[in-house]
Amino acid sequence: MISKKMQDQVKNSSVIRAMFEEGKRLADIYGAENVFDFSLGNPNVEPPEDVKKAILEVVNDSNSTGIHGYMNNSGYEDVRAAIANSINNKFGTAFTPKNIIMTVGAAGGLNVILKTLLNPKDEVITFAPFFGEYRNYVKNYDGELVVVSPNTLDFQPNLEEFKEKITANTKAVIINSPNNPTGVIYSEETIIKLSNILRDKQKELGTDIYIIADEPYRELAYDNAEVPYLSKYYENTIIGYSYSKSLSLPGERIGYLVISDQAADYENIVAAANIANRILGFVNAPALFQRVIAKCLDAKVDLEVYNKNRELLYKGLLSFGYECIKPEGAFYMFVKTPIENDVEFCSLANKKNILIVPGSAFGCPGYVRIAYCVAYKTIEKALPGFKALIEELK
Amino acid sequence: MISKKMQDQVKNSSVIRAMFEEGKRLADIYGAENVFDFSLGNPNVEPPEDVKKAILEVVNDSNSTGIHGYMNNSGYEDVRAAIANSINNKFGTAFTPKNIIMTVGAAGGLNVILKTLLNPKDEVITFAPFFGEYRNYVKNYDGELVVVSPNTLDFQPNLEEFKEKITANTKAVIINSPNNPTGVIYSEETIIKLSNILRDKQKELGTDIYIIADEPYRELAYDNAEVPYLSKYYENTIIGYSYSKSLSLPGERIGYLVISDQAADYENIVAAANIANRILGFVNAPALFQRVIAKCLDAKVDLEVYNKNRELLYKGLLSFGYECIKPEGAFYMFVKTPIENDVEFCSLANKKNILIVPGSAFGCPGYVRIAYCVAYKTIEKALPGFKALIEELK
Repeated sequence: MISKKMQDQVKNSSVIRAMFEEGKRLADIYGAENVFDFSLGNPNVEPPEDVKKAILEVVNDSNSTGIHGYMNNSGYEDVRAAIANSINNKFGTAFTPKNIIMTVGAAGGLNVILKTLLNPKDEVITFAPFFGEYRNYVKNYDGELVVVSPNTLDFQPNLEEFKEKITANTKAVIINSPNNPTGVIYSEETIIKLSNILRDKQKELGTDIYIIADEPYRELAYDNAEVPYLSKYYENTIIGYSYSKSLSLPGERIGYLVISDQAADYENIVAAANIANRILGFVNAPALFQRVIAKCLDAKVDLEVYNKNRELLYKGLLSFGYECIKPEGAFYMFVKTPIENDVEFCSLANKKNILIVPGSAFGCPGYVRIAYCVAYKTIEKALPGFKALIEELK
Repeated sequence: MISKKMQDQVKNSSVIRAMFEEGKRLADIYGAENVFDFSLGNPNVEPPEDVKKAILEVVNDSNSTGIHGYMNNSGYEDVRAAIANSINNKFGTAFTPKNIIMTVGAAGGLNVILKTLLNPKDEVITFAPFFGEYRNYVKNYDGELVVVSPNTLDFQPNLEEFKEKITANTKAVIINSPNNPTGVIYSEETIIKLSNILRDKQKELGTDIYIIADEPYRELAYDNAEVPYLSKYYENTIIGYSYSKSLSLPGERIGYLVISDQAADYENIVAAANIANRILGFVNAPALFQRVIAKCLDAKVDLEVYNKNRELLYKGLLSFGYECIKPEGAFYMFVKTPIENDVEFCSLANKKNILIVPGSAFGCPGYVRIAYCVAYKTIEKALPGFKALIEELK
């Protein structure tokens, strides 16, 4: 009796989440300390102390009546102003509150902007490997996700194939950098080339094509690597941001959209996104956490914790003979599987109590994603398992 | 460049929200104390003190690592268990955590369950007057909202017409009691009759028809009036609840769905709703407030504040010659307009700085909704305006 679309969903229920449940099951049997769960991007680093301080400040403020009430569907104007200023200071942009819509995390933001833009059959291009939920988000609005095949050399987008896949039906391109699952940052050179391709195609086809930059991992860039800010390179840009990773608040569902005023039909996009936020049932981003993040705009989780994990895991895997690109951002490592079948490799890993996600779930078979947002000692204790795995397969 | 559906939305942008903005504009001109904004269901009663206490407890708990992290898409199991127990104690039901899915408010919950159930062209019946967002929520999943015309005698559902409007395509019936906008509680007699009609029709048509009970106003019932708990009367029942009104937390977006295990295809509905919560971009109900409400299951806003407003407004309007049913719940009064055109009446009210919403927005022209979740003195100061209005129209 459930809908046909959801029947398929129940059948193919997300691999990642299934792993999450499997991890809990194994932990019950073997003890949590003996299960090495690298399956989910659930940050293990606690939020910065500023977050707790901000919550207490907001809640204890004697003038704080109505702090849990409704506000404009786009969020509190003062919070949006503070965010706009913060972005302007960092990237030399000139945003105002009008460019900002507070959202229920980046997932909420992506749904809002896709609802705003997509007609049925509109195409949205993305680059493999990609976060599998994009397919669902696009399908929610009867759009079609067009996947550009992976460039496994360095995991920068395959721009030749991209050019060929742009059609008159292309409405948007989703870019995710630092990337889930590879940890690669799309270089400035990539962004410039990609923008030029889009501008040429817009002229050729007489259409507007929007870049939707999904940026929950923006603040997680190692070695001071720069993550190009998309609106500076391309006019039709919408940015989705989330505090899930930068402040370790994924369960609180707080983020925002930046809608560039250089974007075609800007006024209507802003009006429609405001309405979409409402009618999709988000209504508004959670009130308390809007106020909290406005007090934490310069705070950031301790990146060094993830960096140490990255170094340990990367060196370890390489020394065992695994092949992978060293991630420049996020907290994922995308590793070539010693056997072709990545799903089978994950099953073998499971038997060593190691939970990882097959690359197939990201449109890139032959690889696995290891989420290293875990305790350092989890990696230490899991490394022998990874070693045994590859040795048994040789 | 925005989607065609959203172009229409931008054009017909919600009357209620437009009023909200108009109220802010007038307040800027005349001062907030001279604008009488009865347009929005934004509770003026502060949350019970327990809420603040609970927030502080959760945040200050020294063992509270990961309190802002991801959890199962359906929410924390212990929170769901606490809610199930609380419902069982109140209504003699036998729910377990499996029956409960934590949602981003009732609006989020309704979207989750409609996504779960609806195929394109499926029909969802509701009773006028009704919360206008139902139309949008149903359209989000390409369903069709079928409206049963209002019974203006007592605003109980028009069951004769209901029976005639049930077809083989009827997938669900949305019931909202205490009702927005009338404040009427659907009586036990109504619920029993309605359930019997549905059972007969299910048998006749060989289909399953779900009741979706939208119950954000359940705790707001005056004079100890009883609000029948739907799952006790009808097998195929799903209940959407929210703490927006019972704890005055509308901005925090916290609520839940109860999926009765008596419902046909129960297991699949639970699995699909869990996935729908994720893929619609809600991901999960806000983490902190899940923990907070679990500590506030017996708390409730001070209903006497609304009750005093209700008495003052009701007596006042009646004494001026207005006609309306005395609301038994919620914080709305649905008043017959002295002229036929309710939209025109609202414009005239606007000129006296009174903001109210035309009944047309609820599928019931010739009436207006007055949201009396405002300060007592706002009603006192607005009454002369209401008096002048009806006198000028005589």
